[in-house]
Amino acid sequence: MRVGIVGGGQLARMLAEEASALGIEIVLLAEAETDGAVAFVHEVRYGSAHDPVALRALAEEVDVVTFDHELVNLEALHELENQGHRIFPSPEALLFAVDKAAMRRLCTTHDLPAPAFVLLSPGDVVGINELGVTLGWPLVLKAARGGYDGRGVFIVEDAAGADQVIKDLFAAGISVVAEERASILRELAALVVRRPSGELLAWPAMETAQVDGVCREVLLPGTVEPAIAAQALEVARSVAEAIGLVGVMAVELFETPEGIVVNELALRPHNSGHWTQDGAITSQFANHLRAVLDLPLGRTEMTTPAVASVNVFGGPEGSEPLLAGLNDALRVPGAQIHLYGKATRPMRKLGHVNLTGEDASLVRRLAWEAAIALGTPLPSEIEEHIR
Amino acid sequence: MRVGIVGGGQLARMLAEEASALGIEIVLLAEAETDGAVAFVHEVRYGSAHDPVALRALAEEVDVVTFDHELVNLEALHELENQGHRIFPSPEALLFAVDKAAMRRLCTTHDLPAPAFVLLSPGDVVGINELGVTLGWPLVLKAARGGYDGRGVFIVEDAAGADQVIKDLFAAGISVVAEERASILRELAALVVRRPSGELLAWPAMETAQVDGVCREVLLPGTVEPAIAAQALEVARSVAEAIGLVGVMAVELFETPEGIVVNELALRPHNSGHWTQDGAITSQFANHLRAVLDLPLGRTEMTTPAVASVNVFGGPEGSEPLLAGLNDALRVPGAQIHLYGKATRPMRKLGHVNLTGEDASLVRRLAWEAAIALGTPLPSEIEEHIR
Repeated sequence: MRVGIVGGGQLARMLAEEASALGIEIVLLAEAETDGAVAFVHEVRYGSAHDPVALRALAEEVDVVTFDHELVNLEALHELENQGHRIFPSPEALLFAVDKAAMRRLCTTHDLPAPAFVLLSPGDVVGINELGVTLGWPLVLKAARGGYDGRGVFIVEDAAGADQVIKDLFAAGISVVAEERASILRELAALVVRRPSGELLAWPAMETAQVDGVCREVLLPGTVEPAIAAQALEVARSVAEAIGLVGVMAVELFETPEGIVVNELALRPHNSGHWTQDGAITSQFANHLRAVLDLPLGRTEMTTPAVASVNVFGGPEGSEPLLAGLNDALRVPGAQIHLYGKATRPMRKLGHVNLTGEDASLVRRLAWEAAIALGTPLPSEIEEHIR
Repeated sequence: MRVGIVGGGQLARMLAEEASALGIEIVLLAEAETDGAVAFVHEVRYGSAHDPVALRALAEEVDVVTFDHELVNLEALHELENQGHRIFPSPEALLFAVDKAAMRRLCTTHDLPAPAFVLLSPGDVVGINELGVTLGWPLVLKAARGGYDGRGVFIVEDAAGADQVIKDLFAAGISVVAEERASILRELAALVVRRPSGELLAWPAMETAQVDGVCREVLLPGTVEPAIAAQALEVARSVAEAIGLVGVMAVELFETPEGIVVNELALRPHNSGHWTQDGAITSQFANHLRAVLDLPLGRTEMTTPAVASVNVFGGPEGSEPLLAGLNDALRVPGAQIHLYGKATRPMRKLGHVNLTGEDASLVRRLAWEAAIALGTPLPSEIEEHIR
C-alpha cells in the first residue's frame, strides 16, 4: 500500500513514523530537501502543492493521496478525484478548511454553533457602520483564505480600522468573514477520525492554551466541564458527517458564556492532537493513515490519567541551536521529545514535548521544563501556572 | 547530529522511527533498495558491511556509527576507531556478540554463569569421547561465528554425530564451542543500555518463548521468580561493564535447575525488547540512539501491568500477502502492529504485534489473534496456552 502525502512538513514526518510501523510506503511531494519530512522518507518527489502536473504524477503512483497542509490546488484535486484517484480528505471536504467563508456557510446550513457573522466579497458595497451594529465593536475580520496560526485574523476597534482591513483584503482579491468578537472563556479542540465506510471515533476533547494566536500547550484533562466537552465532540461529529470526512479532523472551538462556537477546522492531524502519540492507545497519525486507507480505526482512549503536550519554539535571535538543549531536555524524567528537523528561528515551531503521568500539574511542569531546555520562551501567561 | 547505521534491516527501520522524533539524522549503509529500512531513510548509501571502503565513507559523514546487525568487518572498524571515529558499540565489544568462543572466554574471566564448555579450533586434535565424558551426551556444538536464530547450533546425540559436525565446521575454517546441554526451565533475556559516561539502565527482565530456536513471543510479567530476574539483570550489568558497552545489549539466558546461565549476547536492540516500543516509558530504539550519542538515557519502567509481544512470521508457501491480513489484525482492540516492509516467505520474520493492558492472559491472547490474522503460524506449544 502506498500513500502519497502532499507537503513535506512535520505532519508528514510524523505520519511517516507511523507508516513505517504499519508497513505502508510513503511517497512525499515536498517543496525542498530541507522540508522536515524529507529525511525520513525515501521516495520524495519535488514540486508544488499548487502544480496540477506534480499532483497528478503523485496520484498516479500511489493508492491514495493525503495532505500535510491545506494550501493545495483544489481544482486540480477535483479533477484527479473525478478521474478515479482516491484523494482523502476529498477536495470538497478540504474546502471547509481552506475557505473560512465556506466553513461559516456550513455552520448555517448544518445548525452548528458559530459566532454571528457576515460574509463580504470583493466588489461588495460594505456598510461598515451596519456591520458594527450587527456584530458590535470591536469585531473580528478574517481573510477567508490563506491565514493560519492567527495570521489573517484582525481585531478592529472601529469603523475606520475595519474599513482599512477590508479595503486591503479586497484589493488582494480576498473575501472577508466579519464576526462578532467571542468572549472566550477557554479554547477547546475536538479531534475525530472517520473512514470512508462511516466508522467515526473521537479522542477526548482537549483544552488548548493559545498565546498571541499560537497554541503553546495542550492539557488533558483540562478544566472543561464534561457536558461542554461532550458538546464539542458532538459538534465535531456533526461536521465530519456533514462534509463526508475521511481522515483526521480537528475542530477548534471557543467556550463562551453563551456556550461553544466553532472557530476553525483543520482536515488533517493537528497540533492539538500531538499528545496522542504518547498518551492515547492510537495516535492521530496512525489513525489518519488507517482512515485514508479504509482500514479499521484504532482505539482513542487515553492510556494515562494526565497528559501535557507543550510546543517547542525557537528562542530569540542569537539563541543556541536547538540540539544544544537536547541534553538537558532528555534529563527531564519521562519527557517524550518530538522534533521536526528544522533550524531554529525566533518563535518558529520546532517540535513538541509530551509527558504523561498521574498528576496533571506535575506533567505540565515537567513538559515545560523540557521545552524550556530546548529554548522555548515561556510566556508570562503560563509561567504563573507552572512555577 | 548524524548517526550512521550499518545494515538496513528492521532494527535500522525502527531506529529511524525514533531518530525522526529526536530530530537526529540517519545515514544508512544498506545492501539493497529492498532492505526494510530504506523506505524510511532519505540518506542511503549502498554497500557491504564487510567492505572497508563503504564503512570508512559512512564513518566520515556521520558523528557516530552504529549497527543493525553484527555481521560486520571488525578489523575495518578497529582501524576507523583508531583514527578517531566514534563506533558504538566498539568493535572490541562487538566481538563478544560475533564470536561465541570469545564470549565464553569472557564468561570465564568475569565469572559469569555459563554451561560447562570446551573451545575447539580448526587444526585441534579433538578427543570426541573425552568431550562426551566432560559435557555429557547429548551435547551442543555451536559454530563460533556466523550463526543466528538457532542456525549454527547443533545438538548431537553421540560421538559419531559430534565428529561429523566438528569436521564440517573445521573444514569451513570455523571454530566450535562445545557445551553441555543445559536443562532449560525457561528462556530469559535481560536488556540493558549504557552510555560512554557509564550511566546504565535495565528494562525489566523478560521471559521469551522459543520454538525450534526462534523467539515467538515475549511476555511481561513472565513466570520468572523475582530473585531469578534480578540475577539475570545483574549478569547483564556485569557483561556491560566488562565489555565497556555503549548502546543497547540483550543477554539471552537459560534458567536451569542449577540457576541461570548465559546463552548469547546481542549488542544492539533485540527482538526480545520490541515490547518496549509500546510498553515502556522509553523504547530500546530511542535509548540505543541516546546512548551512542552520549545523551541522557530515558526511563525504562513499564507503563502498564502486562505486555505481550508476538512475532509475525510468513505463513506456508502460497499464503496471502502480509497486508491482506492487516484489516483483520487492526480490528483487534489495542493491537500495536509493527511491520518491517518485507515480502512474505514461509517463517520469515515480518513484524511483531505489541499489546498492553491489565490482564496478562488477555493481552497474550489478543496479540496472538492479531499475529495470526497477519498469517503467523501458531505453534502447538503456544496454542494450548491461548485457546
